[in-house]
Amino acid sequence: MSGMPSLDLSQDVVSLTRTLCDIESVSGNERAVADAVEGALRSLGHLRVERDGDTVMARTELGRPERVVLAGHLDTVPVNGNWPTRLEADRLVGLGSCDMKGGDAVALRIAASVPQPNRDLTFFFYEGEEVEEERNGLKRIAAKHPAWFDADFAVLLEPTEAMVEGGCQGTLRVDVVAHGTRAHSARSWRGDNAIHKAAAVLQRLNDYEPRRPVVDGLQYHEGLNAVGIHGGVAGNVVPDEVRVSVNYRFAPDRSPEEAEAFVREYFAGYDLEVTDLAPGARPGLQLPAAAAFVEVIGREPRAKMGWTDVSRFSALGVPAVNYGPGDPLMAHTQDEFVQLAELRECEERMVAWLTG
Amino acid sequence: MSGMPSLDLSQDVVSLTRTLCDIESVSGNERAVADAVEGALRSLGHLRVERDGDTVMARTELGRPERVVLAGHLDTVPVNGNWPTRLEADRLVGLGSCDMKGGDAVALRIAASVPQPNRDLTFFFYEGEEVEEERNGLKRIAAKHPAWFDADFAVLLEPTEAMVEGGCQGTLRVDVVAHGTRAHSARSWRGDNAIHKAAAVLQRLNDYEPRRPVVDGLQYHEGLNAVGIHGGVAGNVVPDEVRVSVNYRFAPDRSPEEAEAFVREYFAGYDLEVTDLAPGARPGLQLPAAAAFVEVIGREPRAKMGWTDVSRFSALGVPAVNYGPGDPLMAHTQDEFVQLAELRECEERMVAWLTG
Repeated sequence: MSGMPSLDLSQDVVSLTRTLCDIESVSGNERAVADAVEGALRSLGHLRVERDGDTVMARTELGRPERVVLAGHLDTVPVNGNWPTRLEADRLVGLGSCDMKGGDAVALRIAASVPQPNRDLTFFFYEGEEVEEERNGLKRIAAKHPAWFDADFAVLLEPTEAMVEGGCQGTLRVDVVAHGTRAHSARSWRGDNAIHKAAAVLQRLNDYEPRRPVVDGLQYHEGLNAVGIHGGVAGNVVPDEVRVSVNYRFAPDRSPEEAEAFVREYFAGYDLEVTDLAPGARPGLQLPAAAAFVEVIGREPRAKMGWTDVSRFSALGVPAVNYGPGDPLMAHTQDEFVQLAELRECEERMVAWLTG
Repeated sequence: MSGMPSLDLSQDVVSLTRTLCDIESVSGNERAVADAVEGALRSLGHLRVERDGDTVMARTELGRPERVVLAGHLDTVPVNGNWPTRLEADRLVGLGSCDMKGGDAVALRIAASVPQPNRDLTFFFYEGEEVEEERNGLKRIAAKHPAWFDADFAVLLEPTEAMVEGGCQGTLRVDVVAHGTRAHSARSWRGDNAIHKAAAVLQRLNDYEPRRPVVDGLQYHEGLNAVGIHGGVAGNVVPDEVRVSVNYRFAPDRSPEEAEAFVREYFAGYDLEVTDLAPGARPGLQLPAAAAFVEVIGREPRAKMGWTDVSRFSALGVPAVNYGPGDPLMAHTQDEFVQLAELRECEERMVAWLTG
């Protein structure tokens, strides 16, 4: 472990966030930060630490009746003139500060400062969250070491402005395809223009009324949107195909199968090709472990609209929520930042939950 | 001129067509066929021959009161498993047979066999018709040697099934652009989907009723078609722009300015970017030179829907028609062919017109 960047977990959460941010870890380059995290966790002595690729798992084994997971990804989106970070009066500004080295720092502070938590803890620090799903460390671990996921509850420390965001919506992508017959555009009446047929597909999208169901006490908000449209052969040809890519974000009271059935019904009469489908996750806030967490955090929970890795825990039967420092709307922006007060609040509330 | 492919203009029109086809001349590779044509025309002795690039011009200078142009392009679309040609019972099959070595052969037969025509003749054999307009030999010559175009009438020997096709429709291409506001598709109500706005653009295309005006006695048929549509940022983003490429084919009673004004009015409320605009050509069949030609050909003339180089003559004040062997619907197809009877009929009728 010589030559590994040293990571001092006794520093305060603001300094630790900054240190983590300034070990550059754009997706695919997580090695150095994973080495630093692994080294720091091993040196604590009270945790069992495992490493798989650039994902680090650490756990207490205190025989508590309940076990909870704290998880955060180590990678960031690409550098965009915003690295390394800089400290302003009340915020840390720069790549990773919001999404999500701040959440990682909170979890690492707990690993170091709460050696005797009231619930057994499992920490995950993982790679490959900001890129194609095949590279996601949690996805790999769920398949390879499912026992590591044994727990009663999970908190994913993604940015939520220090609010509990329950569950997540599912996402379905389909290509809606209309067909026609090619012809030279100088004699267009000999053909059948496929692009013109997309008018009805787009009109159905305009007519869409989103469902806003309440699930386990939280209100979700669905969406049905064209995210791409492509058609055309050449500037003088009536085209024979048009392809509208539609993204359906569905509330967690619908299964992936129900979501697909809805979209097939909604676009009846057109060819449909499913290109992506990921389930949502119910918030499960009525479960005892989750309810206790919400109570200690002390703010009204809200629904998570975007798809996140909580759905992996949910799929394995572990209720999970998002809770972390940073504004989710700042994630992936050049100007991302985290408020120092939110870093401190998240650490304090989680310590209270795990020691109360 | 040694080493140049020999071209015997005394062979019959069928053999001559086949010989021309089998000198491969995909656009950009017209040198060999232009050399062969130039050599054969120079050897005739009764023509003044000029060469510019791979365009050959030849003319009689007999002091006749009327001068007519016969023109054909020497290039073909790419080889597509259909070269060299093969002779079947009643047709010649293969690349260039229809578009338009058959027409070139008819013109070359006249150059060789009618040394004393009743009208002075100007022949053009030119390169670069099947590719971007900048490479078109006639376009270059019109700018560089406009005097070569002095004439009372022009016949472009493009395939028309041996019918006189008068004038041509103009063509206008515009991008109709709709704008919106980006958002993450998980929170789509924060954005404004540009692709959804294309519904109204496509609906206007569906509602379009084509004009079918009669111009100088011939009925045209307009068309307004989407030839391309493109929009989309990523699979999880509500897109902020969509671009519909629309091609308007307009009858020659409308000027390019009128065509553009029509399209701007038709898509009022959207941004429009003109990407291509070429005028049509009135058939001009009431003019004496054209009327005499139609009478000798002896078939009912019809309107030309597609844009052709007749519009270059028309723009220089020379009425022009399309007339040649081959079915225009077979042009650019792998299976292109020309009927031997049409080759012979075209030669016979044109000889009759120029010697009667």
